[in-house]
Amino acid sequence: MQKKSLILVSGGMDSGVLCSIAAQTKDELYFLHLNYHNKTHIKELSCFRKLCTHFNIPAERQKIIDLAFLKDIGSSSLTDSSIEVSDFSEISLQGEIPSSYVPFRNSIILSLAVSWAESIGIRSIYIGANEEDSPGYPDCRQSYYDCFNQLIKQGTKEGDIQILTPLISLMKKEIVEQGNQLHTPFEHTWSCYKEADIACGKCDSCVLRLKGFAQNDLKDPIDYQKD
Amino acid sequence: MQKKSLILVSGGMDSGVLCSIAAQTKDELYFLHLNYHNKTHIKELSCFRKLCTHFNIPAERQKIIDLAFLKDIGSSSLTDSSIEVSDFSEISLQGEIPSSYVPFRNSIILSLAVSWAESIGIRSIYIGANEEDSPGYPDCRQSYYDCFNQLIKQGTKEGDIQILTPLISLMKKEIVEQGNQLHTPFEHTWSCYKEADIACGKCDSCVLRLKGFAQNDLKDPIDYQKD
Repeated sequence: MQKKSLILVSGGMDSGVLCSIAAQTKDELYFLHLNYHNKTHIKELSCFRKLCTHFNIPAERQKIIDLAFLKDIGSSSLTDSSIEVSDFSEISLQGEIPSSYVPFRNSIILSLAVSWAESIGIRSIYIGANEEDSPGYPDCRQSYYDCFNQLIKQGTKEGDIQILTPLISLMKKEIVEQGNQLHTPFEHTWSCYKEADIACGKCDSCVLRLKGFAQNDLKDPIDYQKD
Repeated sequence: MQKKSLILVSGGMDSGVLCSIAAQTKDELYFLHLNYHNKTHIKELSCFRKLCTHFNIPAERQKIIDLAFLKDIGSSSLTDSSIEVSDFSEISLQGEIPSSYVPFRNSIILSLAVSWAESIGIRSIYIGANEEDSPGYPDCRQSYYDCFNQLIKQGTKEGDIQILTPLISLMKKEIVEQGNQLHTPFEHTWSCYKEADIACGKCDSCVLRLKGFAQNDLKDPIDYQKD
């Protein structure tokens, strides 16, 4: 029987490359999108749908879970409209926790993914977590994922589901390089943290993405604001 | 400053006793109810509200999170209307996983609780998990909670939030005994797994509850169906 794999697809650049990596395995792919009503959720949802189309994922293997209540928990600039998204700063790359941190967010996402996986017999869950991307986020380190895999062993029927993090230790340069080799449709991905039609080019996420393309002498196919 | 504690209040008997135990600490209590649209959610929500009133929890320290999408994940008799809730059987007390199991449910619940806790500075989270109650549920064992506490250390900013399971190794007899001593308002709790106005008295949960009262020579204040 064909192996089933679940891919967490945020619609960001890394998740696009993740889809390309998972697609190489020839597993039957299931795409899960969590809408936690961050400021850019409309853009991300639209990218999710385009990625589903690109990778030929039929409706019954797509799931969107609405996590509107995370907005209510608050305390993150990504969901709380009273906290402004800050522009890129070297501080956020030196291990401090950025204001965009949503408390324990990846545990919520992974728990939901495991729940769906266990109910339909999926054994592998891909997440595009990346240490360089977010050095200050406690739940983006490999040690956190190792711990989560232990929790799955303890907390599921068979204990045989595994979280895979193929991008965890890659630099953005390498992610873009890999995506380019695998023909990732970068034009269907959105990385900017700000709420706008065109990416700002200034927030942490835009700056890292642009740097990744520049280091490969490639042009990012999406548009950026000019000023 | 007064310590803050979060209590997971399902509205079941054990969560009522849990409230009484936490109330003894004199911490500032926060009550969290997860509505995962199981068959008895209306009854349980009503009990949650009565317990909030009884324990003087103001509105700003109550939170109800709607997990309607768990119904969509399915594969449990508690949420999936195509699976019937079975009557009590010795099998379900011998370590097999009952049909009422929702995949990885407690991890979803705990992740949400930790997210709220971290955002408002709560350090202790009480959950009424109990091994006797559900010996076949992989996520009701102490080893699972130990693992979850490790995950919190890895995945939160300060790593200082702790899950407390004061009922984990108690027998139902002892839970009723403790609740009775602490004046738990048992009349504001609902344990039956079935969808009805009056508890069935026959499902796993009713049978265990009634046994707990009988072993203490106490009368359960809620009504049961007669047949």
